[in-house]
Amino acid sequence: MTNFTAGYFTMTEQEAVEYAKGTLDFFAPDAELSCKEIGDGNLNYVFRIVDAHTDRSLIIKQAGPVARISDEFKLSPDRNRIEYDILRLQGELAPGFVPEVYHYDPVMNCTAMEDLSRFQILRTALGKHQSFPHFADHITTFLVNTLLSTSDLVLGHKEKKELVKQFTNPELCEITEDLVYTEPFFHCPRNDVFEGTRSFVEREVWADETLALETAKLKFNFLTNAQSLLHGDLHTGSIFVTEDETKVIDPEFAFYGPAGYDIGNVIANLIFAYENAKATDGTPEYQRFLLETIEQVVDQFKTKFTAAFRDQATEQVARYEGFLEDYLTGILQDTAAVVGLELCRRVIGIAKVKDLTDIADPERRTTAEINCLTLGKQLILNRRDYQTGDSFIAAIKKEDTP
Amino acid sequence: MTNFTAGYFTMTEQEAVEYAKGTLDFFAPDAELSCKEIGDGNLNYVFRIVDAHTDRSLIIKQAGPVARISDEFKLSPDRNRIEYDILRLQGELAPGFVPEVYHYDPVMNCTAMEDLSRFQILRTALGKHQSFPHFADHITTFLVNTLLSTSDLVLGHKEKKELVKQFTNPELCEITEDLVYTEPFFHCPRNDVFEGTRSFVEREVWADETLALETAKLKFNFLTNAQSLLHGDLHTGSIFVTEDETKVIDPEFAFYGPAGYDIGNVIANLIFAYENAKATDGTPEYQRFLLETIEQVVDQFKTKFTAAFRDQATEQVARYEGFLEDYLTGILQDTAAVVGLELCRRVIGIAKVKDLTDIADPERRTTAEINCLTLGKQLILNRRDYQTGDSFIAAIKKEDTP
Repeated sequence: MTNFTAGYFTMTEQEAVEYAKGTLDFFAPDAELSCKEIGDGNLNYVFRIVDAHTDRSLIIKQAGPVARISDEFKLSPDRNRIEYDILRLQGELAPGFVPEVYHYDPVMNCTAMEDLSRFQILRTALGKHQSFPHFADHITTFLVNTLLSTSDLVLGHKEKKELVKQFTNPELCEITEDLVYTEPFFHCPRNDVFEGTRSFVEREVWADETLALETAKLKFNFLTNAQSLLHGDLHTGSIFVTEDETKVIDPEFAFYGPAGYDIGNVIANLIFAYENAKATDGTPEYQRFLLETIEQVVDQFKTKFTAAFRDQATEQVARYEGFLEDYLTGILQDTAAVVGLELCRRVIGIAKVKDLTDIADPERRTTAEINCLTLGKQLILNRRDYQTGDSFIAAIKKEDTP
Repeated sequence: MTNFTAGYFTMTEQEAVEYAKGTLDFFAPDAELSCKEIGDGNLNYVFRIVDAHTDRSLIIKQAGPVARISDEFKLSPDRNRIEYDILRLQGELAPGFVPEVYHYDPVMNCTAMEDLSRFQILRTALGKHQSFPHFADHITTFLVNTLLSTSDLVLGHKEKKELVKQFTNPELCEITEDLVYTEPFFHCPRNDVFEGTRSFVEREVWADETLALETAKLKFNFLTNAQSLLHGDLHTGSIFVTEDETKVIDPEFAFYGPAGYDIGNVIANLIFAYENAKATDGTPEYQRFLLETIEQVVDQFKTKFTAAFRDQATEQVARYEGFLEDYLTGILQDTAAVVGLELCRRVIGIAKVKDLTDIADPERRTTAEINCLTLGKQLILNRRDYQTGDSFIAAIKKEDTP
């Protein structure tokens, strides 16, 4: 047997099987295990281990060598600890909506978790024009359960302060601060603008000082507002779906920030799917499903948040007449702003979404991207005006090419 | 010699001398030391140690037995670590405006620091109608240097997040959350209202739902807004003065919160001194000194903050046109609100100020207290309207009894 306690090394498939047998209390002693590395080889190795007798399976996710990661991305292995801790917590707060985690090993830098092979990535599925009628219901439950329960509305203020400490995440936050809140809004060398869209960006985004000022205010809200424990990267590539189930994965960006950040990311990425659907001749029914989902995310979030608040709020001053309405108004305002930021940054910044880059026809891609930018600007500049699902849909439809 | 490494015990005066000789590199080997315990016996023992040869002296501040503190106040000794760390940091950021700290001992739970015996407490001195013409200049330098330098405007965002962690202060924050933001604004058994003021409080504060709602919003700002590293308890009892010098002491409440909290506490406590001066027949010159000081605190803070920002800001988006103005508007708005909260809570809540309780004549005391409450409400409810020293003075004078 390999000695797994001596220190960190990158596992082979065979060593992952030995690790599962020797360290985890998951498979039966007579299990007949096979293993395949299925990661994309970027930052993590992802081993899928299956027992031929029972078909039970699990995933071991191991961080690549620290040296390599540090050199390239300056990311410490602490992100794996954060991911494990937050998956445990989210699993308690929103049972069934995150993969189950079985084990974390700070020496081997790996986490053993539920195998989600029967799921597909939501962004990929939406790219194939598949509908998920329960998605709005699922994701709003996840959002309300995680965002409300970790806020000062419900959690004791001392406990909350400990969670703020535990989930301090400087390196991953820096990525967001740079890529979402800063670089897209000026002529930064790291930006990556599609040729057809470039003149619009130069004219309507980089030359707009009013827009720049609003993004600066929003960046400081992101930097200072420790409202709720966020997933922090809740786009449709971080969501696994089947027809009946939704699982939120990859919470390594988790930290305490404005609740609207998570909600806004969900909505913006549904808008990308909608722009993709229009540009790739999705059926009117499919387009309608996407718009209805966006509307439901906003409205169901508000309804469920209100009900859960009434049920769970422990902070007495939060129960003063008018407080909840004011609090929700703030969340929705932040949500609209983040939708706008995400719409702009995925068009202009270095990190792209397939919904836009997969649009083969250059004119259609440009149209889709300019729609995103025009809508994004609107939402940032007039973020106080979007308090209902309706108002988001009206804004989205206004950009529909006739 | 006493063995100081074996574990914590409460020192006698003689043991404090031995400790200073054996542990600190402060006095000469042939120093002839004498010691007197000068603390008020509340939470800490304060030993003043003097060398008869040179007249050099220092203070050793030792926390009382943990058990006793825990039973009474549920405060962990971590507050001493926080106090030492913040004094070091404030000493770097605002040299000369805090006592120098020489040594911290986590086992003996004590800190050795500069002896400030030649200073007096500002609140006491103002009660004797003494003027300090440099105070506004000094305190605004302290405020700007500590509040700006620890914010995301100047400090790298990763470093700032580490400071947020380091100065997480759940127990002391809870005291403020309860005593400043919650209890004064409803009929809480712990409140302590002067008989003459009581009917006004019942009618104008506890029955005012609009006021309650605004205090709830402000409480959540205090709970979530990690803007600057605050002193956290900057009333005139935490400030030592001579004619030429100002030292800020007792920063054990330090944590990351809204910058306006510190500024607001300074101003509110100057207003208490002003109400005291009026009620105890202070000369017109002395009253004018207090009003001018308040005006200067506001205006010099803005001027110095603006200049220091131009000089030191590292965050590029903060230099966008219009950002600084918006940022300062926010700080001033928080300042006005905190002035209002402090004015109300010292009248209604459990923690009093001598400026009011020392007013011997019951009618005059009631007048002073009602002035504070009326002004406090104004400032909380209309906090957006106080952006200049002028506007604060106008509001204060409006409450002057004709």
